[in-house]
Amino acid sequence: MPGSLFGRILSVATFGESHGPAVGVVVDGTPPGIALAIEDIQKELNRRRPGQSAITTPRAEKDRVEILSGVFDGVTTGTPIALLIRNEDKKSSDYDNLKDLFRPGHADWTYDAKYGVRDWRGSGRASGRETAARVAAGAIAKRILDDTGVTILGFTREIDGVRAQSVDPTQIESNPARSPDAAAAALMVERIERAKAEQDSVGGIVEVVASNVPPGLGDPVFDKLEALLAHAIMSVGAVRGVEIGAGFEAARMRGSVYNDEPYMDGGRMRTRTNNAGGIAGGISNGMDIVVRAALRPPASIARPQRTVSVGGKEVTVEIAGRHDPCIVPRAVPVIEAMTALVLADCLLVQGAYRGAGVSSTDAPSR
Amino acid sequence: MPGSLFGRILSVATFGESHGPAVGVVVDGTPPGIALAIEDIQKELNRRRPGQSAITTPRAEKDRVEILSGVFDGVTTGTPIALLIRNEDKKSSDYDNLKDLFRPGHADWTYDAKYGVRDWRGSGRASGRETAARVAAGAIAKRILDDTGVTILGFTREIDGVRAQSVDPTQIESNPARSPDAAAAALMVERIERAKAEQDSVGGIVEVVASNVPPGLGDPVFDKLEALLAHAIMSVGAVRGVEIGAGFEAARMRGSVYNDEPYMDGGRMRTRTNNAGGIAGGISNGMDIVVRAALRPPASIARPQRTVSVGGKEVTVEIAGRHDPCIVPRAVPVIEAMTALVLADCLLVQGAYRGAGVSSTDAPSR
Amino acid sequence: MPGSLFGRILSVATFGESHGPAVGVVVDGTPPGIALAIEDIQKELNRRRPGQSAITTPRAEKDRVEILSGVFDGVTTGTPIALLIRNEDKKSSDYDNLKDLFRPGHADWTYDAKYGVRDWRGSGRASGRETAARVAAGAIAKRILDDTGVTILGFTREIDGVRAQSVDPTQIESNPARSPDAAAAALMVERIERAKAEQDSVGGIVEVVASNVPPGLGDPVFDKLEALLAHAIMSVGAVRGVEIGAGFEAARMRGSVYNDEPYMDGGRMRTRTNNAGGIAGGISNGMDIVVRAALRPPASIARPQRTVSVGGKEVTVEIAGRHDPCIVPRAVPVIEAMTALVLADCLLVQGAYRGAGVSSTDAPSR
Amino acid sequence: MPGSLFGRILSVATFGESHGPAVGVVVDGTPPGIALAIEDIQKELNRRRPGQSAITTPRAEKDRVEILSGVFDGVTTGTPIALLIRNEDKKSSDYDNLKDLFRPGHADWTYDAKYGVRDWRGSGRASGRETAARVAAGAIAKRILDDTGVTILGFTREIDGVRAQSVDPTQIESNPARSPDAAAAALMVERIERAKAEQDSVGGIVEVVASNVPPGLGDPVFDKLEALLAHAIMSVGAVRGVEIGAGFEAARMRGSVYNDEPYMDGGRMRTRTNNAGGIAGGISNGMDIVVRAALRPPASIARPQRTVSVGGKEVTVEIAGRHDPCIVPRAVPVIEAMTALVLADCLLVQGAYRGAGVSSTDAPSR
Repeated sequence: MPGSLFGRILSVATFGESHGPAVGVVVDGTPPGIALAIEDIQKELNRRRPGQSAITTPRAEKDRVEILSGVFDGVTTGTPIALLIRNEDKKSSDYDNLKDLFRPGHADWTYDAKYGVRDWRGSGRASGRETAARVAAGAIAKRILDDTGVTILGFTREIDGVRAQSVDPTQIESNPARSPDAAAAALMVERIERAKAEQDSVGGIVEVVASNVPPGLGDPVFDKLEALLAHAIMSVGAVRGVEIGAGFEAARMRGSVYNDEPYMDGGRMRTRTNNAGGIAGGISNGMDIVVRAALRPPASIARPQRTVSVGGKEVTVEIAGRHDPCIVPRAVPVIEAMTALVLADCLLVQGAYRGAGVSSTDAPSR
Repeated sequence: MPGSLFGRILSVATFGESHGPAVGVVVDGTPPGIALAIEDIQKELNRRRPGQSAITTPRAEKDRVEILSGVFDGVTTGTPIALLIRNEDKKSSDYDNLKDLFRPGHADWTYDAKYGVRDWRGSGRASGRETAARVAAGAIAKRILDDTGVTILGFTREIDGVRAQSVDPTQIESNPARSPDAAAAALMVERIERAKAEQDSVGGIVEVVASNVPPGLGDPVFDKLEALLAHAIMSVGAVRGVEIGAGFEAARMRGSVYNDEPYMDGGRMRTRTNNAGGIAGGISNGMDIVVRAALRPPASIARPQRTVSVGGKEVTVEIAGRHDPCIVPRAVPVIEAMTALVLADCLLVQGAYRGAGVSSTDAPSR
Repeated sequence: MPGSLFGRILSVATFGESHGPAVGVVVDGTPPGIALAIEDIQKELNRRRPGQSAITTPRAEKDRVEILSGVFDGVTTGTPIALLIRNEDKKSSDYDNLKDLFRPGHADWTYDAKYGVRDWRGSGRASGRETAARVAAGAIAKRILDDTGVTILGFTREIDGVRAQSVDPTQIESNPARSPDAAAAALMVERIERAKAEQDSVGGIVEVVASNVPPGLGDPVFDKLEALLAHAIMSVGAVRGVEIGAGFEAARMRGSVYNDEPYMDGGRMRTRTNNAGGIAGGISNGMDIVVRAALRPPASIARPQRTVSVGGKEVTVEIAGRHDPCIVPRAVPVIEAMTALVLADCLLVQGAYRGAGVSSTDAPSR
Repeated sequence: MPGSLFGRILSVATFGESHGPAVGVVVDGTPPGIALAIEDIQKELNRRRPGQSAITTPRAEKDRVEILSGVFDGVTTGTPIALLIRNEDKKSSDYDNLKDLFRPGHADWTYDAKYGVRDWRGSGRASGRETAARVAAGAIAKRILDDTGVTILGFTREIDGVRAQSVDPTQIESNPARSPDAAAAALMVERIERAKAEQDSVGGIVEVVASNVPPGLGDPVFDKLEALLAHAIMSVGAVRGVEIGAGFEAARMRGSVYNDEPYMDGGRMRTRTNNAGGIAGGISNGMDIVVRAALRPPASIARPQRTVSVGGKEVTVEIAGRHDPCIVPRAVPVIEAMTALVLADCLLVQGAYRGAGVSSTDAPSR
C-alpha cells in the first residue's frame, strides 16, 4: 500500500532512507504561477538540519536541495515538483553492531516483522531523516499559504515538563530550544543538557498556530480539518498525541465554559474565546488554528539497555552514534510543514487559494 | 471533495442528515464469505442509540438497520454492503427558532460559510446522528477482526474529571456511564446529573484497547497505524484530542523510562511495559493497541447564551430540544467503530485477515 | 479493494445486486446550491429502464428513485446524496437451473473464482441492472454540466454493422434504436428482431458528443481527460473498446492529415477538423468531445450452448428469462452518464463549475 | 489535482520535463524481498530510448537510471523506490522559434489554457520523454509479475495500415518496427521511410498479450481489469483508442459467435476462443489478456503547417528538431509498461503475488 503518499489535491510522495543515496519528495498538484526559489526550500531545511546547536546531533548534513522538475523561469508550472536531497555524512559503521538486534523503543523489530528485510543502517526508512522530505514539501505549501495571507507559527511549548508561559514570536528562533518564552528556554536547555549528561533523553510538546485562515476549510465528515491535521501530525515519528484548541483540557470543561461565544467584529464573525482552536464541525471558522503535538523522548540513548537479538536472545545494547537528546526543537519545522501541507491542500480543495497562480480555463485565446 | 469517504481497502461512504429521510453507509471492500447477520449490526447500533438511560437524550430512535446489498445466504459476497437506517422520531419544529441564528459551539456558522446552504434541522449533517452510520459500518469491521481473533474493548476512562482507576471489562455495560470502574461510575453519573440540573454539559475521555492484534499493521510513513487511528477518531464530532499509549504523558518521560524493554515470552517478542501503545515506527508490534480520545462537553445546553444571528445581530439563544448532557457513554461504541474500521482496513492491506473469507484466485476450477 | 467507487471530487459509490432488495448510489462532492428535483433523476432512469419497447427485455421495473439525503428545499447542500432504487420485478426462479453452471460469456465463473461465493440470481452484481445506479448518479453530473452550459448528446452509431450515416439529434429518442439517422434506425431494428427470432443477439457502437466544454479539463499525465473517459466507459459491462475523436482510424492517417489546423474564430481558438476529439495533451481544447464505445452482443441467448458445470462437467445450457437481444439503445444513457460523471468531476477539479452553487469561503459573516 | 499519480497498491508518481534537469518516478507499494538490479530497469529503458535505429529520432539520450531508495543488498525493502534519469542531450535552442506559437496537433495551446505558464522547450511535461519514467516503473512491475509467472509480450500489430498477419515472438526485437511478422516488418519500415522522406509521419497499433495471468484480477464495477487497462494505456500520449480481445470487432459479432465456449482442460477451466481477451465481468479468467492501442501519427512533421501564434495571429510553422516519423516501435515498451503496472497492481490487490517477497506479519519473533 502506498504509505508514503499524502494529500488530496496537493499531494506528496516521499522517499529515501537514512543511509541510502538520498531522500526526497515529489509534490504534485501545486497551482501554476507561484514564485518558487530554491532558497524558499533551503531555509526551511536549514531549520531542521542536524548540527545547528550544542543540543542537537553533530551529524553534519548540509541538506542541499535540488529542484528536478515543475519550476520554469522561477515559477511553478503546475506539473510535479521533484526535490532531491543527497545524503552526505553517513557513518554506517556506527550501526554495525546494531544489525543483529532490535533496539528498544525503535522500529527495528516491527519493520522486520512487516517487511522481512530492512535497511538497518541508521534506522533506514524509519529514521527521522525522512522528515527532511516533509520539510521540503512543506516549504512549497508555505508559499501557497503565504500567497493567500495565511501564516504558520511553530514553537516549543514544553520540554521535559518545562512549559513556555508566554508566546513572544521574536524569541523563537533566537534560542536553541525554539521556545517563545526566553525564561523557559534557558530552563529547557538546562534540562536537555542534564539528560544528555545522564546518557538519557527528554520529550516535549510542539505548538503550531495558523493565523488568517479563511473560513470553510475542511471536509466533513471524515476529512474534517482537525482529522486531517491529526493524521498528518501523528504520522511524524515521535508524536504520541495530537490536540486541537483546548484539547484534552476540553474533556474537563463545562459546556457553558467551553462554548466560544460568537460576536461581530467590524462585519466579521469572531468568537471571544478560542477553545475550538479555529475549527467548528470540522471546518475552519476564521479564528487561529491551534494544534499541539506531544513528542516522546528519543529512543536512542547511550546508557546500556536490555533488549532482544535477531536470534531471540536477551542481550544488553549500548547505542553509539550521534543522537539528539531531545528532538523537540528540530521537530518544530516538521510539525509546521505538516500543518502547512494540510492547510494548503484544504485551501486548494476549497478553491480558496488567492495567489497569482491562475488556472485559466477561461483564458482568452489571444 | 468526497469528505464522507474513509478507508483504503475497507472503504466506507456515509450519508444522511439528522432530520432527513435516513442515514446510512455503503461499505465496500469487505472480504467475501464472512458470516454477517443483521443482529451483528443492530446490537452495536443499540449501544449508540439515544434513550438508553436517564442520562441520555430521550429522542426515541429505534435505529433499525436494513441490509440492502452485499450479503447473500447469510454471508458477505465481496460486493458493496449498503446499510440503511430510517430517521423516525424527528421533531424538526424544535429547531424553528434556531434557523436564523448560529448556535454557540455548533457548526451552524461554518456550514453556512462553507456551503452557503444548510439543513438547519437538528444540525443536519453535522449532527451526532451521523455516527450511527459509522457504528453500523464498524460492526462489519468487528466481524472481520473477530475472524482474526482481534478484540476491541471500549470504555469511559474519564467524565468531568472523574477518572476510572481500574479496568474491569464486566462492569462496562452494566452502568450508564460505561465506566470499567464501578465506583467511578457512580461519581460520573452524579456529575452528569448535576450538570444537567444546572442546564450545562460535561466532557470526558474514551479509551479503546485492541488486543491480539497481529504485528505488521500500519503503512509508514504517512499511513502509520497511529496516524490512521488519529484521523479516524479525530473525525468524530466532539473529539478534540487523540493519544496513543502513554500519549501526552510521554512528553514528560525520560527515554530510559519510556522505552519499552523487549523480552522473549515463549517464542514471541513482547515488551515489559507498553508506553508505545502497541505501535512502533507506525507498525503494530503485537502488544495491545491503546488509544484515547478527549471529548468536549456537548454544545447544546439549556441555559441562555449570547450569540449572533444570521443577519449579524447579537442575540440571546435558549436551546430547547432533547439533548445529551454528556455524550461520552454513547461515544464509546463510536470510537470503537472507528478503531475497528482502521484495524480491519490495515489487516486487509497487510493480507493478514484470517477469516473464512476466501479470495480464491487459485480456486480449483471444479 | 473498493471497486465500486469512482471519481476524484465528484465521487460515486454504487451498490446493489440484480435480485437483492435494491440498487443505489451515494454521490459525494456535489457543489452546494444546485437545484435538483427527483424528476431530473427519474427521467434519465426512464431512458435506461427495461420494457421501453418491443426490442428490449420485458422485465417491468419502474425504477422509482428515492432521494435519501443531501438535498434540502430543492437544492443540493454539498453533503452526500444517497439515491435508492428498489428492485421490484424479480423472478429469481428463472435462475434456478443456472445456479450450478457457468453461463458462456457471463461472469459466473470469474465471480466464483474471485469471491468464492456469488449471488447467482440474475447475475447478481455483474448484472446490467447495476448501471441504473450509474444513470442516477449521472443525472446529478448532468445538472452540474448544465449549469456550466455543457451539453451531452448520446446516440447509437452502429448496430450489427448498420451504421448511422448522419446525426439528426431530433431523431434519437423517436426510434427504439436511438439512432440519429432514421433510415439506419429502421434497418437496425430489423436486425435486432431477426437476431431475436434466431435466438441470438447483436452488438454495436454508442457515440457520445459533449459540446461547449471549457478548455482546461483533464489532468496529465495519468488523469488525462481521455484516460478518465476510457476508464469510466470501459467499466460498463458490455464495452470492449473505447476511442476518442478519429480513434482507431487515426492509426491509419498521416500526420499532415490528422493534425487539426488551428485558426481564430472571433477571438476564440478553434480547429478546422476535430480528429483529436476535443482533447490535446490530455486536456480539453474547447472543441466537441467525441467518444465511442464498442459493445459486444449480450451473452444471454436462448439457443442451446455448450458450457461447464460448477462440478466441472461439460453440459448444454438453455437460458430462459427475459433478455435483451441488443443492449445498445439502453446503453446510450449509461455511456452518457459515465461521460457526464467524468466531465463534471474534471470541471470541479479545474474549478471551472459556473453554476449557482457557491462555496462561499469568503461569504460575508452577515 | 495530482494527475501524475497512478495505481492503488503499486503506486507510481512520475515527474519531469523534456528539457529540465531530469525525469523520474517514485514507485511505492512494492512487496519487500524482490530481487531488483539496475539492469532490470536499464534494459527496458534501452528499448524505449531514442536513437535505436534509422527510423527513430537521433536525439542521443543514454537514459541511465539511478536507484535512489527502496533497494538494499539487491532486494526491495517495501519502501518507496525512487528512480532518476537525467536529461542529457537537450537542444533547447531548437525550440526558440516555437515559443510564441501553438504547434498543430500538440498540447501547446491546452497547456497554456490550463496552466497559464508552460515550459515550451521540447513540449515540457507533454513530451513523450515523460514515458521514460513509465517504462522505468514498469520494469519493477515486470519483476513482480515475473515472480508470479506472468509474462508480457508487446509488439507492433500495425503501422500505416500494414498489419502483422502472424505473431512470431522471436521476430519482434530483430526488426526496427518491432513487428512479430518479418514480412510485414519490411513493409512497415518502408512506409515509415517514405513518410519521413515526405516530411510526414504515420501511426499504428500496438498489441500486448499477457499470459499465465491468474484468474481473479480486477475489481468490479469501476475498477474492472479492462477499465484499469484502458485508463493506463489511454493516458499514453499518442493513444486514441483501446480495445480488449475482439474489441471493436465484437460490435459486429452475433452473441452465438462472440461467447467463448468454456471447457475443461486437465482440471482447469478454459475457453475454446478468446474473444473476451481474458476478462469476463471485469475479472481475469486465466486466458491470455489481449489489449490493443491505436496510436496516432506524431504531431511534429517537417512540412510547413498553418497555425496560430500566442498573440492570436494565423502563421505558418516549420518544425525543426529531431523527431520520430513513427512512434509505434518505441511505444511498444511503454504500452507493455502500463499493462504490467496494472496487472501487478491487481495481483497485489488480490493478494495473488507469488514471489519471494514475504510480508511476514506472522514471522516468528526469533
